[in-house]
Amino acid sequence: MNETRQLAAWVATHRPGDIPDGITHEAKRALLNYLAATFGGCRHEAVDIAIKTVLSLGGSSVSNLIGRAEKCDPLHATFINGISSHVDDFDDTLPKNYIHPTSPVASALFAYGSANPLSGRDFLHAFVLGFEVTSRVGNVVYPWHYETGWHITSTAGVFGAATAIGKVRNLSVEQMIWALGLAATQSAGVRETFGSMAKAMHPGRAGQNGYFSALLAENGFTSSEQSIEGARGFAFVQSVNRDLTKLLDRLGERYELSDNTYKPFPTGIVIQPTIDACIQIHREHHPDPGLIKAVELEVAPIVFELCMKKDLRVGLEGKFSIYHAAAIGLARGRASLDEFTDAAVADPDLKRIRELTVPRTNPKVADDASIVVVTMQDGTRFTKHVEHAVGNLERPMTDAQIEEKFRDLAQRVIAPACANQIIDKCWSFDQLADVREIIGLTVPV
Amino acid sequence: MNETRQLAAWVATHRPGDIPDGITHEAKRALLNYLAATFGGCRHEAVDIAIKTVLSLGGSSVSNLIGRAEKCDPLHATFINGISSHVDDFDDTLPKNYIHPTSPVASALFAYGSANPLSGRDFLHAFVLGFEVTSRVGNVVYPWHYETGWHITSTAGVFGAATAIGKVRNLSVEQMIWALGLAATQSAGVRETFGSMAKAMHPGRAGQNGYFSALLAENGFTSSEQSIEGARGFAFVQSVNRDLTKLLDRLGERYELSDNTYKPFPTGIVIQPTIDACIQIHREHHPDPGLIKAVELEVAPIVFELCMKKDLRVGLEGKFSIYHAAAIGLARGRASLDEFTDAAVADPDLKRIRELTVPRTNPKVADDASIVVVTMQDGTRFTKHVEHAVGNLERPMTDAQIEEKFRDLAQRVIAPACANQIIDKCWSFDQLADVREIIGLTVPV
Repeated sequence: MNETRQLAAWVATHRPGDIPDGITHEAKRALLNYLAATFGGCRHEAVDIAIKTVLSLGGSSVSNLIGRAEKCDPLHATFINGISSHVDDFDDTLPKNYIHPTSPVASALFAYGSANPLSGRDFLHAFVLGFEVTSRVGNVVYPWHYETGWHITSTAGVFGAATAIGKVRNLSVEQMIWALGLAATQSAGVRETFGSMAKAMHPGRAGQNGYFSALLAENGFTSSEQSIEGARGFAFVQSVNRDLTKLLDRLGERYELSDNTYKPFPTGIVIQPTIDACIQIHREHHPDPGLIKAVELEVAPIVFELCMKKDLRVGLEGKFSIYHAAAIGLARGRASLDEFTDAAVADPDLKRIRELTVPRTNPKVADDASIVVVTMQDGTRFTKHVEHAVGNLERPMTDAQIEEKFRDLAQRVIAPACANQIIDKCWSFDQLADVREIIGLTVPV
Repeated sequence: MNETRQLAAWVATHRPGDIPDGITHEAKRALLNYLAATFGGCRHEAVDIAIKTVLSLGGSSVSNLIGRAEKCDPLHATFINGISSHVDDFDDTLPKNYIHPTSPVASALFAYGSANPLSGRDFLHAFVLGFEVTSRVGNVVYPWHYETGWHITSTAGVFGAATAIGKVRNLSVEQMIWALGLAATQSAGVRETFGSMAKAMHPGRAGQNGYFSALLAENGFTSSEQSIEGARGFAFVQSVNRDLTKLLDRLGERYELSDNTYKPFPTGIVIQPTIDACIQIHREHHPDPGLIKAVELEVAPIVFELCMKKDLRVGLEGKFSIYHAAAIGLARGRASLDEFTDAAVADPDLKRIRELTVPRTNPKVADDASIVVVTMQDGTRFTKHVEHAVGNLERPMTDAQIEEKFRDLAQRVIAPACANQIIDKCWSFDQLADVREIIGLTVPV
């Protein structure tokens, strides 16, 4: 019955040198991917509205917002960064618990680092710990908590943001316990909001609330000492079942970052193998979209549950359509944000391919697999069997692929030279004397 | 399946003239009691820490804080007002669902009204609606939600604060639906924190989050349209059972304010009848504390579950001690904040009476009743049977008693003349051209 204390003590006494090298590199990949997703989302209408609302409150203008010219106070900057990074569903994912852990944690750290001196080493250290705590808190209550309807990215992410900001503020064990306790009692976010802007708000709010929890705790604001394991704490109130051993299991021996994955495409995860297969056919055979006669897909049964929309009107619907997945892969050979605009789903070429695409469910096809057979009008057939979609743990995106994703998204907002500098600085994140070196480059001029 | 929409539509179209006169008066009582509790709490260490934390963020200084000289931005002012009003457990209570509804709702409105032009009529109107929505959302999930460990004051209060600020911002039905939906996905606060400062944070954070939800919705930030009744919305995710009919039952015919109660003493509710009885004995017989030989109590069984601490070291413990309840009533004839300080529990006279007090449980004694028999050293006996403690629905505090409570608490912070002016303005709240007339008086000079 002292799991929260043990976790807080581990965080408070953890040293940068305790992080294994492989985890440091994975943290850099997560951060580069985070910045990519955030550049992608930073001009979304939800972000415009959130910034307008925040600026109307007249806070101090000390924190930059990634990809934006406005500035605001660090708590609201966390909120805005969180929305930008999650609004396109392009941020990272832990397949084991469906958490997008970097969004709440890095959003808080970038806002903090913009307003306060912070070395790259300390940022990275706090990020690794915040990621770790987010995922471990989630592991305790997954899957029950998620199945009930909680958006686990925010409900667990608030603990991680409190941890990360608590670490850069150098909290004592007791303060860290309170920070986690203040985070626990702000853990919120339900899946009923999915499909609305409120979903993207979740990691932003979790980051902001965790950040504020750490500041309050630093100043002596008390909370429960058993906020996770207590009878009326997080793991009991917010989940019908729980495994508290997962909070501390092999803590410090294995890091949750090693299970992280990055999405090559901004879509629902279950159509990614089909996109992957179709892009490969496009690259290998360059089929003329106008001469495609039939597209047959063999996909996992879960696709039939989630992604069977064929008649699309708005871009967002394309992110959850197996038909659109095949069409963009074959016709365009890519699946970036441009393939999920209202204009893209109205493209007659794509519409035509959607209509001649026939998915079949095949229980032998795994969730991350897809078999695609394209028949051209002259009878030529192209076949591709993807066993593990790119981006999965079994076939992770390479560093170069993450760089490519980053360039694609960053160059919509900042100059290519700045994007390249950010990439370089991200790979040497732990060497930055002050993280404002990288934050300054994210601001459009 | 459109309860949220119906509730939002009722709020958005409700007119000040729709409020029955009796409810207007009850709203004024609630506000005067709120201001009393807030003056009582505004110098608590938790408030000092929260203000220090908020000011370090450098927000704008446009909103007064009740009872404090500092100013801050309106969202954080809501947060601080909420802590001040709840930290002494002296705010109002709905016995039907254990919600303290005024704290989150009025905290947001006073912060808003300090930073924006707002008439007393519009404030009062928004307050009645915010109170109504808070209690009705709570009714839907009470008691299951509360029993699981949620602090229902904050989990339901965030809906009420969103309603109140949404109403003063004149939101459309659609915007009000989003405001409720953004509130729903921020509903948080667990009872594990009870006994720490985090408990007092709950209504402040609920008020702040509700306030922000209304601003976001006004600017077009979308959320679920079925945030309360949806399968992954509030009533299903945050409660193992629910009665959705309670959300709209006799809406507009009967108002939840008519069930509100005010505490005469800042203690746990179950020891209030004993305090009441002992104060009556003190007033009628003025027993010399040094000559009391025995104190026998007959109390409800729940007292034995919650309030049996006799050996007290800190003032907070006195709030939950049946022994201390008897001692302060008999020896001091009052039970204000002064009777629950560390010094008060160390008072030898009070300690002596605590030690010779013997409570007995009697299943025939109702939760709001108490029988007290005091035996003096000369054999004289004083007996008092309180059937309903003052402050209960069956024996509500009179307007004069609420005024007395207000004066006691306000005069610790502001001049008596200012306190009297606030009382006058509170009784004519709906006549104030701008609520800053009353807010300005709450600031110490």
